[in-house]
Amino acid sequence: MKESDKLQVHVLSEIQNLKVHGRTTEQRAPLTLFWTGSAIELQVTGSELWVEVESDYDIHEPWISILINGVPVSRQMVTAGRYWICIFRGMSEGTVKNVRIVKDVQAMSADPGCLLQFHALKSDGAFLPVEEKPYKIEFIGDSITSGEGAIGARAEEDWIPMWFSAIHNYTYMTAEAMNADYRVVSQSGWGVLTSWDNNPNNNIPDYYEQVCGLLTGENNQALGAGDPYDFESWQPDVVVINLGSNDGGAFQTPEWRDPVTGKVHKQRLNEDGSYHEEDLTAFENAVDRFLVKLRKNNPKAQLVWAYGMLGFPMMPAIYRAVDRYTKRTGDRGVSVLQLPDTTEETIGARTHPGELSHRRAAETLSEYLQGILA
Amino acid sequence: MKESDKLQVHVLSEIQNLKVHGRTTEQRAPLTLFWTGSAIELQVTGSELWVEVESDYDIHEPWISILINGVPVSRQMVTAGRYWICIFRGMSEGTVKNVRIVKDVQAMSADPGCLLQFHALKSDGAFLPVEEKPYKIEFIGDSITSGEGAIGARAEEDWIPMWFSAIHNYTYMTAEAMNADYRVVSQSGWGVLTSWDNNPNNNIPDYYEQVCGLLTGENNQALGAGDPYDFESWQPDVVVINLGSNDGGAFQTPEWRDPVTGKVHKQRLNEDGSYHEEDLTAFENAVDRFLVKLRKNNPKAQLVWAYGMLGFPMMPAIYRAVDRYTKRTGDRGVSVLQLPDTTEETIGARTHPGELSHRRAAETLSEYLQGILA
Amino acid sequence: MKESDKLQVHVLSEIQNLKVHGRTTEQRAPLTLFWTGSAIELQVTGSELWVEVESDYDIHEPWISILINGVPVSRQMVTAGRYWICIFRGMSEGTVKNVRIVKDVQAMSADPGCLLQFHALKSDGAFLPVEEKPYKIEFIGDSITSGEGAIGARAEEDWIPMWFSAIHNYTYMTAEAMNADYRVVSQSGWGVLTSWDNNPNNNIPDYYEQVCGLLTGENNQALGAGDPYDFESWQPDVVVINLGSNDGGAFQTPEWRDPVTGKVHKQRLNEDGSYHEEDLTAFENAVDRFLVKLRKNNPKAQLVWAYGMLGFPMMPAIYRAVDRYTKRTGDRGVSVLQLPDTTEETIGARTHPGELSHRRAAETLSEYLQGILA
Amino acid sequence: MKESDKLQVHVLSEIQNLKVHGRTTEQRAPLTLFWTGSAIELQVTGSELWVEVESDYDIHEPWISILINGVPVSRQMVTAGRYWICIFRGMSEGTVKNVRIVKDVQAMSADPGCLLQFHALKSDGAFLPVEEKPYKIEFIGDSITSGEGAIGARAEEDWIPMWFSAIHNYTYMTAEAMNADYRVVSQSGWGVLTSWDNNPNNNIPDYYEQVCGLLTGENNQALGAGDPYDFESWQPDVVVINLGSNDGGAFQTPEWRDPVTGKVHKQRLNEDGSYHEEDLTAFENAVDRFLVKLRKNNPKAQLVWAYGMLGFPMMPAIYRAVDRYTKRTGDRGVSVLQLPDTTEETIGARTHPGELSHRRAAETLSEYLQGILA
Repeated sequence: MKESDKLQVHVLSEIQNLKVHGRTTEQRAPLTLFWTGSAIELQVTGSELWVEVESDYDIHEPWISILINGVPVSRQMVTAGRYWICIFRGMSEGTVKNVRIVKDVQAMSADPGCLLQFHALKSDGAFLPVEEKPYKIEFIGDSITSGEGAIGARAEEDWIPMWFSAIHNYTYMTAEAMNADYRVVSQSGWGVLTSWDNNPNNNIPDYYEQVCGLLTGENNQALGAGDPYDFESWQPDVVVINLGSNDGGAFQTPEWRDPVTGKVHKQRLNEDGSYHEEDLTAFENAVDRFLVKLRKNNPKAQLVWAYGMLGFPMMPAIYRAVDRYTKRTGDRGVSVLQLPDTTEETIGARTHPGELSHRRAAETLSEYLQGILA
Repeated sequence: MKESDKLQVHVLSEIQNLKVHGRTTEQRAPLTLFWTGSAIELQVTGSELWVEVESDYDIHEPWISILINGVPVSRQMVTAGRYWICIFRGMSEGTVKNVRIVKDVQAMSADPGCLLQFHALKSDGAFLPVEEKPYKIEFIGDSITSGEGAIGARAEEDWIPMWFSAIHNYTYMTAEAMNADYRVVSQSGWGVLTSWDNNPNNNIPDYYEQVCGLLTGENNQALGAGDPYDFESWQPDVVVINLGSNDGGAFQTPEWRDPVTGKVHKQRLNEDGSYHEEDLTAFENAVDRFLVKLRKNNPKAQLVWAYGMLGFPMMPAIYRAVDRYTKRTGDRGVSVLQLPDTTEETIGARTHPGELSHRRAAETLSEYLQGILA
Repeated sequence: MKESDKLQVHVLSEIQNLKVHGRTTEQRAPLTLFWTGSAIELQVTGSELWVEVESDYDIHEPWISILINGVPVSRQMVTAGRYWICIFRGMSEGTVKNVRIVKDVQAMSADPGCLLQFHALKSDGAFLPVEEKPYKIEFIGDSITSGEGAIGARAEEDWIPMWFSAIHNYTYMTAEAMNADYRVVSQSGWGVLTSWDNNPNNNIPDYYEQVCGLLTGENNQALGAGDPYDFESWQPDVVVINLGSNDGGAFQTPEWRDPVTGKVHKQRLNEDGSYHEEDLTAFENAVDRFLVKLRKNNPKAQLVWAYGMLGFPMMPAIYRAVDRYTKRTGDRGVSVLQLPDTTEETIGARTHPGELSHRRAAETLSEYLQGILA
Repeated sequence: MKESDKLQVHVLSEIQNLKVHGRTTEQRAPLTLFWTGSAIELQVTGSELWVEVESDYDIHEPWISILINGVPVSRQMVTAGRYWICIFRGMSEGTVKNVRIVKDVQAMSADPGCLLQFHALKSDGAFLPVEEKPYKIEFIGDSITSGEGAIGARAEEDWIPMWFSAIHNYTYMTAEAMNADYRVVSQSGWGVLTSWDNNPNNNIPDYYEQVCGLLTGENNQALGAGDPYDFESWQPDVVVINLGSNDGGAFQTPEWRDPVTGKVHKQRLNEDGSYHEEDLTAFENAVDRFLVKLRKNNPKAQLVWAYGMLGFPMMPAIYRAVDRYTKRTGDRGVSVLQLPDTTEETIGARTHPGELSHRRAAETLSEYLQGILA
């Protein structure tokens, strides 16, 4: 590797002005990025910058995007190993560059071996303080929020990290429009009550209070994925919950049988194609319980259930649940917002929202958030 | 590196169905990519694909973009060394993927050490024939055609490869709109007669008949950059010449003094700010001569002088030169097209055309080409 | 008036192939247009066409728009009197023109003298059959649906017909996108339960079963405005109800005192700014009752409550009401759709949705309707 | 006619603050509007405003557009006769309204009977001074500049005033973007040397120095159409000449035979489809002569030949002519601009530029003018 001979290596734990985005532990030697949109951000001088990454996986490899002064200039697969990646070189030493190195793929609950860590930076420049943004937003969601299909040809059908994007994503776009810092908690296929295939274990609320509790395997446990998340360290102004699409899907898919207990779960349809009321109520109860949990941990945040990018059959149930929660608790900081549905024109890969659909959702959502935060 | 244990290495010279874009030599062991937009293209099955690259440079490192099924999914700096880059993994074995690995930066006349080569591919799939496109277009130009500033924040001022793009580029966009294969011959700062700083050696026509003759250094010579280009091997339907911006600039910049001979060159302004007629005539003569050279080598192509993305002060001179050429030769296959000027809304990095300006230029140009090719 | 000497006068009642849009009576001698978007439509040959209008008013004058082959080419105030207006002249005799002459202003409940009638046509051509569209849509709404503010400068504040448009209107745009015939029942300031100023008489449901029952005065009665509307004559595939904005507004405005009985009505706010539950329930009951009435009269139609173009504070109540109605009746043909909120960019005159807001609403609505009608 | 009983009639000649747009005579009793885009403009208070028009024609009737506070709100045919048209009513008395009543159709050289005059205004308000704009632009052109086909369905083929628009027109849009007053001199089918059908009498330059000299008939003469135009009264900052399309067309159409002299005129094609050099030279001479005439009458204006909205085959000849003129005279205030060609997406009625094509042309032109006027 060619590099300037003036570079100095800085392990992350020694960099005062390192800004870390995304839920993680206190650990910086190395720093583990769990969720999509997680990132390190720097204000850095110098002509050259490298980052030492460590990557591993059994199935799904990590990807990163690199933003220089707010513009995405690189996106690359991070193959297994521990090595240096050059972020920039040949730049004017004296000028300050804003740099973000972003995990471009969701936490992989199905791959216990999946890992992305940053060990150190190498530069001939200095690390200056990174601006605090006026707002903080937490996004909670499923494949839509994970940016599944937001990049790639429409014909793509493989479920692989290449088709996930944290940047062609309404979360990033909304945060940009709001000038907000943000964190994402999301998992493809998961819901409030069950996953798309009726598995009641694959629900976001059960893992909401951990750093990244949906990850499995000893390594992730050792890294603190299962640790309690320190909500006080980062209190959002808004929590956006974009869940329900997979709960709706569960009514249309076969039952799920627990491989251990043999117990079966199924969200049932009535003969006329409508949702079975008992199962719908179970979903509403799950929404209600999740709101209680969200409020407990985010006492001052606006809770916005924002749903509809892949149709909105669960909307009446979501409204009912929010209604019941609001009436019971008197909590008036919860609202529901319908996001623009994805159309033939705005669809992306894997029949998921494309970049244009994410853009429209971000416009609608940021308009709404500007209203309630004004 | 983790990889499938079913992968087989194929040196490029053994791959029957490899499609190579861009002017280069016959050499495939390895293949050298000289110009921006140069690429290899594949129709490949299998679950996994890697490319063995070799990169070197004294100053300016190469970058590549990777397109899967026509969509750019990765863009990365290629640091020095010889190593494998993973293009995709985890895909369905049976499906056919169209893959393009594109050199995202221009040939670097100022860095004799700059090198990008592909040695081999590694895959568990088969390489199928790549479609021939109905049209062939050659683009000749300067920094605009090299995509300088087409990516990156507007504030960027460093002259580095990161801000060059072959994809956010009117050449790529026009070729896509026309369903055409294309090649690019371009160099930032160069013109028809002189470069922006009055250096008469830095003109494109002098190097047009070589593979990539503007590269210097023994290594490039050994690689065949200075070899005669085999025009018969790839006869374009259209040659687009986007030159003149730097010839115009030369009137506004200081004289250039030849370090060897001490001879001075300067395109002069009259006192009233108009162009000195003698120097303007020298430019027109250069245009005329270049048209003769273009026609000689591309006997059946439409020659389209497409100019104006950074203002169009040379347009009257270009029209005069084309006029004179046409009258003298009777060659009626030459025309002039004004491209949309870059505006505050469409500007990119380094006060060069941004992606939106390239898009508008591509719309205008492809509309025009569809007309003359119909 | 200059006119062709070959013109023949046809009273409307004698024109076989006259297509009348909008709720009205059977009367054609003359034909009265009550609602906005009401129109006559013709397939006519000949070089010249005139229409004999009759207009009157105490306060608010009618306006018309003229569409030739689907394009709006004229919009004009129709001052009081009975006279001929030229629709076209100088056209090729043999070609068939599609002509729509559209009432561009809502029914005026506050002006008993307001009147727009068509008596006759005058032409040298023949009247051919007008195509039946594959869908029928009824729109029910308030000022938004009346197109208040959809034309005119943003600074406009006068409440006058000039700022109303049936064409720069999501109703027209949605019908065009759906290739549907449509009718509009709308009144500025009115709601489901009360008007914006708490008047419980100014609610749409009470007048829904009449031709145009919200009009007052002897003349309108004589014209049949108060007659029962013949629902069987025109059964819509979809009824779009865009009501709630004024019901929401009533919570924010002073009480209304009945000038006759002295009785007071007021939708109350709680001290914390939330809606008083009793009054909210009254609104929900009104929605529920209206759904019953809509279903009774439109047994096969999809009922779509489409709301949100000027904010959506009533959305939870609308969902509750629809929910209760659906649960009680088992009627599954009712749904709720949130329309895009109007933004600084899309606002029009009188702080109402501008043309761009109407366009976005039409896109969302027609996408949705295509889904449920597919 | 119903009207306020507080209205007062003001003949135009008595209104101090009347602003008249477009070339016309000093006559105000009545005022004759000759050219498209001609208008009266007012800053008026009061609740109601009427204009007394007089219209006549043998073939082609006038149309007007009405703009209130800069927004087009009405467009109507003005049938023959002298009568009052209501501009607005029911508005707040105290507020000031900017009103423009615009002739929406070109001067009709083929209809000596065509006439549009304004006699008087009737209002209960006062007429305040109208702002002077910082720039003045004169547009000279053919059917494109007359807005032929800028309104109406694409299928329309009749040559009638209904399909002409002064508002859906690059002239109006450019003036709006530049905040400029403007005048238009234009005639469908005419050119610099001949009309589209080779008639050498139908050229704009011969009539440029008269008020509206291309009109015929005694009545127009009596109205002063043939009077010398007083250039000193309104000196433009820019003259935009959009001519050449019909001169180009003349090469493709049959010869024209002078009905009086029997003399024949034809712009000839060579056998290979190229333009006959002698005839092309005649066109260039006409351009040159016109530039001389334009400069004589507009000594301080930038002269911009802006061409290309319906193809640009004459561009080389225009550049040659401008070149020759500039070299001979040393006049450096002349330039050439290529306007965006009309595409399938932007075409309007009668295979002429549609509103979208006019918008793109206006964007290109106003960007350019801002540059040269800065």
